Amino acid sequence: MDSTKIDFLFYSPEIEKNNCLDAVDSLHAVKVLRKKQGDIIQVTDGLGGWYRCSISDPNPKSCVLNILEVEKDYNSPKRRIFVGICPTKNADRIEYFIEKSVEIGVSGIFFIKTQHTYPKKINLERFRKIAISGMKQSLKAYLPEMTDLLSFNSFLKQSTRFTQKLIAHLDEQAIDVTKIPLESDLLILIGPEGDFSKEELKLAHENKFKTVTLGENRLRTETAGVVAVSILNLL
Amino acid sequence: MDSTKIDFLFYSPEIEKNNCLDAVDSLHAVKVLRKKQGDIIQVTDGLGGWYRCSISDPNPKSCVLNILEVEKDYNSPKRRIFVGICPTKNADRIEYFIEKSVEIGVSGIFFIKTQHTYPKKINLERFRKIAISGMKQSLKAYLPEMTDLLSFNSFLKQSTRFTQKLIAHLDEQAIDVTKIPLESDLLILIGPEGDFSKEELKLAHENKFKTVTLGENRLRTETAGVVAVSILNLL
Repeated sequence: MDSTKIDFLFYSPEIEKNNCLDAVDSLHAVKVLRKKQGDIIQVTDGLGGWYRCSISDPNPKSCVLNILEVEKDYNSPKRRIFVGICPTKNADRIEYFIEKSVEIGVSGIFFIKTQHTYPKKINLERFRKIAISGMKQSLKAYLPEMTDLLSFNSFLKQSTRFTQKLIAHLDEQAIDVTKIPLESDLLILIGPEGDFSKEELKLAHENKFKTVTLGENRLRTETAGVVAVSILNLL
Repeated sequence: MDSTKIDFLFYSPEIEKNNCLDAVDSLHAVKVLRKKQGDIIQVTDGLGGWYRCSISDPNPKSCVLNILEVEKDYNSPKRRIFVGICPTKNADRIEYFIEKSVEIGVSGIFFIKTQHTYPKKINLERFRKIAISGMKQSLKAYLPEMTDLLSFNSFLKQSTRFTQKLIAHLDEQAIDVTKIPLESDLLILIGPEGDFSKEELKLAHENKFKTVTLGENRLRTETAGVVAVSILNLL
């Protein structure tokens, strides 16, 4: 199906099990977009599945689908980029990061609480909605994994599954990120608004995070996140 | 002066002429930051000038300065990136582009009205305020040039001063932007929300714009703008 002809992408993580849209997408399909029986729609499960479906029952609470065509690993990214980032004091800013990084193509986001992170909790449900909306808008088949707010130590433990770990920080040992060979799966850690503590930097280095720079500019946390994803996605 | 110690950057385009802050910055210095006579502040003229000043008269309407040290071409960018972009229907989105691109390091923005651009006018005064705030926040000495809304033809006329002209567009002839040698001054044109018309694409090619891609993703106008500045700034 030519993606330029898709007017709207639906998200149904359970489509293989229940052949339905959920309540929100059913309402949108039937009441807003006025889809009728027999109409063709495009659905993703957020796990790489790309389903061309016809509507068999346009029920506004649970729209039933008939799967016509399935493509697995649809437009899978050439590099899976995972970002560790601290929520910002102003929630708009981290939400903007979520929207943009999903659009550009992030595979996962770890939300981290450092010594200098202000928010004590995050609204993961809201963040998920923003990510879903970004995925739909950019016609992607992958919904990024997102964690709840992790302590720095929990984040370090989870980071052991990555062989390439980067930390974006302006210091003397930092290497220009464009100058290193990049693996197909990588994790980049972005500093919080109040910077890392010395102890956190030491721990990150002990855990084999390599320091890189994203240029010479002083960037806000959410900007650094978007710049990192932009560059790592294209290099 | 070590930039990490600057708590706030002031903007005074006329500092060489009048040795003063303007009304807004004077109020901020004296009433918000409670600066007193003899206090040291950092000021830029937005043209690369970086002025270390002491306050000689903390007048909240016109704070008088004594220039202690001047650096010209402070942190001048290694590459001057100019972006041609169409305002978005939702003003927040283009304003976000202005904030982020200034922070990352754009040298100029041309606002363009194409056949598929919705807004008929822009609020350049508001855009300038956002750019000034971005410059201050990221401690830069350069305020980007910004045009009022230009017709596509006026934009093409103004583009003749650039020897390297790029257009970000997903088509068959498009070259990956990371694969071409970049000049120290360049202009990149970003497509509007409704894409360029065929006629506009033809005109751009006649005017020696080379088609590049910013990756395989469908990006919103403002995201494409930020991705372009991120990459061109770092390559």
